[in-house]
Amino acid sequence: MNIAILGFGTVGSGVAEMLTQNKDLLAKRAGKDITLKYILDIREFPNSPFRDLFVKDFSVIEQDETVDVVAEVIGGAGIAYEFTKRALLAGKSVVSSNKELVATHGTELLQIAKEKGVYYLFEAAVGGGIPALSPLVDDLAHNKISEVSGILNGTTNYILTQMFSLGAPFSEALAEAQAKGYAEKDPTADIEGIDVCRKIAILAALSFGEMIPASAIHTEGITAIRKEDVQAAEKIGCSIKLLGRAIKEAEGDLYVMVAPFLIPKSLPLAEIAGVYNGVLVRGNFVGDVMLYGRGAGSHPTASAVVADIDHIARGTVARPAWSAAKDGTPSDFSSFFCRRYVVAEGAEQSAIGIIFGETEPISGEENAFLTPMMSESTWTDSVERFAACGGKIISHIRLY
Amino acid sequence: MNIAILGFGTVGSGVAEMLTQNKDLLAKRAGKDITLKYILDIREFPNSPFRDLFVKDFSVIEQDETVDVVAEVIGGAGIAYEFTKRALLAGKSVVSSNKELVATHGTELLQIAKEKGVYYLFEAAVGGGIPALSPLVDDLAHNKISEVSGILNGTTNYILTQMFSLGAPFSEALAEAQAKGYAEKDPTADIEGIDVCRKIAILAALSFGEMIPASAIHTEGITAIRKEDVQAAEKIGCSIKLLGRAIKEAEGDLYVMVAPFLIPKSLPLAEIAGVYNGVLVRGNFVGDVMLYGRGAGSHPTASAVVADIDHIARGTVARPAWSAAKDGTPSDFSSFFCRRYVVAEGAEQSAIGIIFGETEPISGEENAFLTPMMSESTWTDSVERFAACGGKIISHIRLY
Repeated sequence: MNIAILGFGTVGSGVAEMLTQNKDLLAKRAGKDITLKYILDIREFPNSPFRDLFVKDFSVIEQDETVDVVAEVIGGAGIAYEFTKRALLAGKSVVSSNKELVATHGTELLQIAKEKGVYYLFEAAVGGGIPALSPLVDDLAHNKISEVSGILNGTTNYILTQMFSLGAPFSEALAEAQAKGYAEKDPTADIEGIDVCRKIAILAALSFGEMIPASAIHTEGITAIRKEDVQAAEKIGCSIKLLGRAIKEAEGDLYVMVAPFLIPKSLPLAEIAGVYNGVLVRGNFVGDVMLYGRGAGSHPTASAVVADIDHIARGTVARPAWSAAKDGTPSDFSSFFCRRYVVAEGAEQSAIGIIFGETEPISGEENAFLTPMMSESTWTDSVERFAACGGKIISHIRLY
Repeated sequence: MNIAILGFGTVGSGVAEMLTQNKDLLAKRAGKDITLKYILDIREFPNSPFRDLFVKDFSVIEQDETVDVVAEVIGGAGIAYEFTKRALLAGKSVVSSNKELVATHGTELLQIAKEKGVYYLFEAAVGGGIPALSPLVDDLAHNKISEVSGILNGTTNYILTQMFSLGAPFSEALAEAQAKGYAEKDPTADIEGIDVCRKIAILAALSFGEMIPASAIHTEGITAIRKEDVQAAEKIGCSIKLLGRAIKEAEGDLYVMVAPFLIPKSLPLAEIAGVYNGVLVRGNFVGDVMLYGRGAGSHPTASAVVADIDHIARGTVARPAWSAAKDGTPSDFSSFFCRRYVVAEGAEQSAIGIIFGETEPISGEENAFLTPMMSESTWTDSVERFAACGGKIISHIRLY
């Protein structure tokens, strides 16, 4: 079985390394050699041990009938989209770490793969090295799934973990993450929740059968979280985590969102620290299952890419499948119910009870309280009414 | 596809319930109906919704050529062994929750299944509902595995969790677990580590290719753990967990053991509380992955049994395989190295340093210290030398 890697960056070089270092193990598992034949990159790598494998023209790979699987680790939805489509149309399976491409064009690419009798797989697109998609599809989805949620971004989880352990404000924790290489110079896609939005769209599609466009997913980042919020969370035994959540309610409503949540420390998602990721799956018989591991990095992500290659080689693929989102999916986020941690000021104490209902004060935090369960629209209305009484919301975070 | 369940106890009734309640979902996944045709039990269940399916004679199932898969949830290595063998020889796949049978006769049964072109699968035998065996074999074992360890027994984990959260002594925590139905009247198999021993033997066989007999696995339970040990562990930021561990060292040595360990709370295994289970897998590219969920109970365990049925129905089985343990497997436990938490008394302080090497005192605990890394045989020697100086070891627990 011959492999071509598209893109020799962090992940691509890890894939090349793993195919080499674990070559005997992979051959033993598959009953045949798995050979790296080409690496596509426009750059020169004269000192790489793989220097003889480099090509600059994708059509060399496309036209080589001995190439069985293409590993697309370029990223983005531009040239990666073109190459993926051409590879599938040429009858080659494609494995990918590219969450943006899967979230935007996955529906079409899966359809092409099915028609051509090949595979489009993307274990590495969600949760880095964690086996998440394959266990979800192959080992858990015989349960009726009611929720798939996850800590899906190592950068933001590192920042939040630092805010908790050092009491550092957001800006300081971000700067430290950048200095350590855990956050990019332009961290927008991470800290604004865009990266998580793509990943939860993929998890939701695999769990509930429809791919929801990013524009229809309520997405918040972590930039508004203050160190005072971290302290208040500690007081009530909670962590703050940026979660992607997809929730299927008994009545059929499907809510998909990205937002920070206060999570009680008794729940396993609350304890996932630093650059680790975790995916929680709730099924009607299995209950809560969590899959935990390194959410990024050259070697863990390469492990996930090679897992897909190994599945194809051994014939144990659980083919991912979904359709485009139908009308009415997702449900209107304004009808999603949750509790909230709130810090408010400027209105009389009595106004809080009248407007927000039976709130629960957080002891030692003068203006902080937890609201009862309320819908997003009731929350918005309440904030307006509170403002009309001269009140101001300083901070608010949903409770898991 | 037709199913027969052997044994209508906690797990068997859960399997019948899941096959019924998720019937449409299972049919949609498999592209064919999965129908429960027989339940074998010697008891009468006149009020069960499944009452028409009961048979008392196994040969009815054995001789019915329309039965494709037999779910053996009887337990034990007696009649369950006979029925499993006869079912496989009759050309039926067998799925099982029976860790004792898999650990004792799994090598032979896998061989028969292979020869007959059917499957012998046992996801439910380890980690209850957690998808552990399938992800290990199918999604992770393309890594060179260096360790598989787990909290594999909910009863002992519940007892240890209660000792930590309430400061209760072992006997009290056990009595409470029995009152709540988390521990059996005769808790020996759980608290002495016998249950974990079978489970780690299965995980080790899947990870390293050889099934080690229980008699060759160093096995300790949790009965010697004192509440003072729990307090000392807290002081150094550790939990105490009963672990099954299988460790493949770079030099090729394979150590398999069951024993309580102090685990730093920064590691995810340390945070698995109550009746939950967790399986840690360490691979050369993926790093640390942990699979977490409910380790027992009718519905979670049924989910794992039905996962195997679902794999067979969809044709996505990763066939488990191992051989009997070869000479020299496992490595001699006396050469396993670790650190230890120790409470000692009766000898002069200077004797401790001379005998145990560079120890680290635990502040606020007068007679407690951590040893440096030492082999099991050095430890045994040191204890003897210490006794010769009039010293006595009050308690000792290995460090993870």
